[in-house]
Amino acid sequence: MRNIMITIEYDGTNYGGWQKQNNTLSIQQVIEEAIYKITKERVNLISSGRTDAGVHAIGQVANFMTNSKILVEKIPNAINSKLPNDISVVDAKEVSFNFHARYSAKKKRYKYVILNSKYKRPIYRNYSYYVKYDLDIDKMKEEIKFLIGEHDFKSFMSSGSSVKTTVRTIYDVNINKQDDLIILEFEGNGFLYNMVRIIVGTLVDIGRGKIDISLKNIIDCKDRNKAGHTAPACGLFLKKVYY
Amino acid sequence: MRNIMITIEYDGTNYGGWQKQNNTLSIQQVIEEAIYKITKERVNLISSGRTDAGVHAIGQVANFMTNSKILVEKIPNAINSKLPNDISVVDAKEVSFNFHARYSAKKKRYKYVILNSKYKRPIYRNYSYYVKYDLDIDKMKEEIKFLIGEHDFKSFMSSGSSVKTTVRTIYDVNINKQDDLIILEFEGNGFLYNMVRIIVGTLVDIGRGKIDISLKNIIDCKDRNKAGHTAPACGLFLKKVYY
Repeated sequence: MRNIMITIEYDGTNYGGWQKQNNTLSIQQVIEEAIYKITKERVNLISSGRTDAGVHAIGQVANFMTNSKILVEKIPNAINSKLPNDISVVDAKEVSFNFHARYSAKKKRYKYVILNSKYKRPIYRNYSYYVKYDLDIDKMKEEIKFLIGEHDFKSFMSSGSSVKTTVRTIYDVNINKQDDLIILEFEGNGFLYNMVRIIVGTLVDIGRGKIDISLKNIIDCKDRNKAGHTAPACGLFLKKVYY
Repeated sequence: MRNIMITIEYDGTNYGGWQKQNNTLSIQQVIEEAIYKITKERVNLISSGRTDAGVHAIGQVANFMTNSKILVEKIPNAINSKLPNDISVVDAKEVSFNFHARYSAKKKRYKYVILNSKYKRPIYRNYSYYVKYDLDIDKMKEEIKFLIGEHDFKSFMSSGSSVKTTVRTIYDVNINKQDDLIILEFEGNGFLYNMVRIIVGTLVDIGRGKIDISLKNIIDCKDRNKAGHTAPACGLFLKKVYY
């Protein structure tokens, strides 16, 4: 028996998210089926965490136990040969039995892409959040800094999730404009349900002057109603998981 | 009557190319239908040139004559309201009657994207040419320079097109590596049928060491058989047309 860690890139557009569920095709299910075709084993693929419907990943990490004798360096191409072209295994490693893609994760980095142009741009339609309003990037750059550090991020959590604590630590944030694209990055020890999307939605609301309250105050309020809207899934990318 | 010039961005993935034809949906046809819904006029939309099936555009230009009284600054949103989300009008201007999107074009700039990584990356699957081989970028940078200037590019033209002359002038070339992506740009007074794709295919063949002949020699031979393969349509973007 071996414990195999794989790194996965996917375009989440046509899936109901990472996790297996009824009535919709999940990324987990598609990869488990591909592994079955290779190994004839029904594995339980454990990921670093769910991604919602429409969310993409550049560096999702998952692990599974297998008795298959396949050489680890052949695993990506073997699985990929059974995957559709919107999911790709880009790395595989044998890891110790106590490695758990979710519980062993120390940090995660997310990227969020905003398309800020006068008209929609088709090339980016599935990979960005289209915002037509003028955005005050300098203000957004100032505000985003308030996220750094250990805070209770309750204001930035959608209801419907049960967690022991809403305290998380953000180690790094970044916001960068490249032509029509505004690219945000967030690195932290964990993220609450919809946290990145609510932070981005709030930053957009602040940047266009729709709400006039600092992120610092919103954090202090611990009240979802004080934050802005939830930015759409299609702009979000799970970029990297650190172990 | 007014002559309206529009700039169009499209994702060519799901189309049989720019030009109207039987049995396949064309970008021209879809935009003409959208203009009809707005103006009730059956216009003839003239573009700067055809793009093949699967080729994208960031800055395709087209013009049409209309008796519609719609304000020119309202044209992009009006047409876009009738377009699918993989085509978008991003600019509109009223131009003189002698403006012709094809005959008035002075220069064109194309971009070509190669994905050069160990494994396929789903996010780029419709917008790049996946090449898994190691490529000698330095050699490709040296070779691409031979394209600059006025040359007979007969070696880089697919059969099936009739042109008066195969002489064209390339004003600028660029090749740039950004992580897994190799981005090439070509600016010239005109391009032969499949010229950019054959140039890119040849550069890839040279970069991976499959063929050992300089672009300079291939140009001199004026023989399509001396050049490399035709790179796929999905990596190609019509970036800008100059008037």
